[in-house]
Amino acid sequence: MLATGVFDLLHLGHLRFLQESKRKGGPRSKLLVVVARDKTVFRRKGRGPVIPEDQRRELVGALRVVDRAILGREEIDLLGVLKEVKPNLVCVGYDQDEIRTAVTRLIVKEGLPIKVVRIRRFGPIGFNSSSSLKKKIARSVASS
Amino acid sequence: MLATGVFDLLHLGHLRFLQESKRKGGPRSKLLVVVARDKTVFRRKGRGPVIPEDQRRELVGALRVVDRAILGREEIDLLGVLKEVKPNLVCVGYDQDEIRTAVTRLIVKEGLPIKVVRIRRFGPIGFNSSSSLKKKIARSVASS
Repeated sequence: MLATGVFDLLHLGHLRFLQESKRKGGPRSKLLVVVARDKTVFRRKGRGPVIPEDQRRELVGALRVVDRAILGREEIDLLGVLKEVKPNLVCVGYDQDEIRTAVTRLIVKEGLPIKVVRIRRFGPIGFNSSSSLKKKIARSVASS
Repeated sequence: MLATGVFDLLHLGHLRFLQESKRKGGPRSKLLVVVARDKTVFRRKGRGPVIPEDQRRELVGALRVVDRAILGREEIDLLGVLKEVKPNLVCVGYDQDEIRTAVTRLIVKEGLPIKVVRIRRFGPIGFNSSSSLKKKIARSVASS
């Protein structure tokens, strides 16, 4: 099974998303995580992540729950990834509607035997977003 | 074996420190990590971490290389932790000289069979410090 994301500042929201993704796949499932490239993030959000892609990939891959972490393709090529990895399940986060739509459309169009599962948001808002974390850090640095 | 730290924003420098600590203990060693309490950090640095202690502990414990992660004691009680955990090795980071001195002094004074190993700094400066990471994030938020 496959999950994807930027994982810019690894936090508990990421961990819970990945743990829940693995759980959806059942006890023997392997969790492959596709970590977005710097360029892909830049193209989509207008600025790149704080942590370089290699470091983001290595840290995600160091989590016990993750079986393998790879970098995405520079050009967004969802079909390529799906055909190469052949997951039975693709887990998308609560804030990944765009990816969910794109993956679902592809699966239907290509008739692929893949299920898409949406993982809910966990716990309080505080630790669920790298963006809110960054703002909190900025305030903390400014006040010191 | 035991390693300790704040691990405020988990980054590759932390991971390498923990991996190297585990390696020093040999293939069968168990790595126990003592994660500093918010109050302890506040007392030592004049301000607390960005990520609350429970979340820092859980994320560190989710790393494959870590066998167990526990929170430190609110009052700094090194001797208590050493006597309770009974590690054969204590690994300290390149920036933990204060802890190294305190642990070494205790070990000698109490005649404990514990070795202290200093883990060197890894790679380029960029990812080795939560403080420099926070500054980078603050700049990135300010310029957006």
